[in-house]
Amino acid sequence: MTPFVLDPRLAADTLPVGLLGLCAVRLMSDARFPWLMLVPQRPDLTEILDLDEEERHLLMREIAAASSALRAVTVCDKLNVGALGNLVPQLHVHVIARFQGDAAWPGPVWGQGVPLPYEEDVAGMLIRRLRDALGMAPSGPGA
Amino acid sequence: MTPFVLDPRLAADTLPVGLLGLCAVRLMSDARFPWLMLVPQRPDLTEILDLDEEERHLLMREIAAASSALRAVTVCDKLNVGALGNLVPQLHVHVIARFQGDAAWPGPVWGQGVPLPYEEDVAGMLIRRLRDALGMAPSGPGA
Repeated sequence: MTPFVLDPRLAADTLPVGLLGLCAVRLMSDARFPWLMLVPQRPDLTEILDLDEEERHLLMREIAAASSALRAVTVCDKLNVGALGNLVPQLHVHVIARFQGDAAWPGPVWGQGVPLPYEEDVAGMLIRRLRDALGMAPSGPGA
Repeated sequence: MTPFVLDPRLAADTLPVGLLGLCAVRLMSDARFPWLMLVPQRPDLTEILDLDEEERHLLMREIAAASSALRAVTVCDKLNVGALGNLVPQLHVHVIARFQGDAAWPGPVWGQGVPLPYEEDVAGMLIRRLRDALGMAPSGPGA
C-alpha cells in the first residue's frame, strides 16, 4: 500500500493546523474566509465512499469538531461544508465560516475571486486559537 | 416541539424521491445535473452541528447511500457533497453527480446559470432508478 502523501496543490494552498484521528487539519491561505480543510490521511482516496463505514463516522466526527471550533473562534453566521474535488481529486473536506456580506455571500466560496494572503501574525494567531478550540496541544502545528 | 415542515423553497426546487431513516430524499429539478438533496426530517435544524452524534452518523450513512445510488445510476466522474444553506437555512445536504464537461465543470453547481427543467418522463424514470438503487419500495414516492 502506498503511504499517504498530501497533494502538493492542497499543501500549497494551505497552512498546517494539526492532526486529528483521521484527518490532517489545514487552514486555507485566504484571509477573506476563515476556512479549514480536512484531509483524511489514507492513501488513494477520492470520494467519501472510498472510506469504510468506521472511517466515515470518524470523518463526520471531525467535520463536527472543525465546525464547532471554527464557529467558536469566528462567531460566524453560517457554516459551509463541502467535499468537491473536481480540481484536486485527493479527498478533502472544506469547512468554512461564512458571514453575511463576506466576499462571496450568499454564493459558495469555491472559484470566487482571488485568495487574499494572510498577514503572517494573523494566520498564526488564528491557527493558535483553532488549535486551542480543537483541544490540540499548544506546541508546534504537527502537520 | 414544532413538527418538521419542508421549507417551501426547497419543496419548490425539487421532486420527492422517498424517505430514509433520517432524511427525505429529493431530486433537484435541474436536468443539467443529477442532483439529490437530503433533508433531515427534524424541526429547527440549520447546521450539521444541530444534530446529535447518533443523527450525524445516520446522516453520514445516508450521504453514502445517496452517493452510491447516484453513482450507480449515472456512472458519473465525480461526486460533490455539500451543506451550505446560505440562502435557505433549513439543513439540507446536496449530493451531486458531476461529469467532466458538464454545465459547471470544474466549478461548483451552486449559483451557476439557470436550472433546466426535466421532461416529466425523464425525471420519473430517474427517480424510479434512484429508488431502486436506494432499496426503496417501487410504489409511490412517499415523500
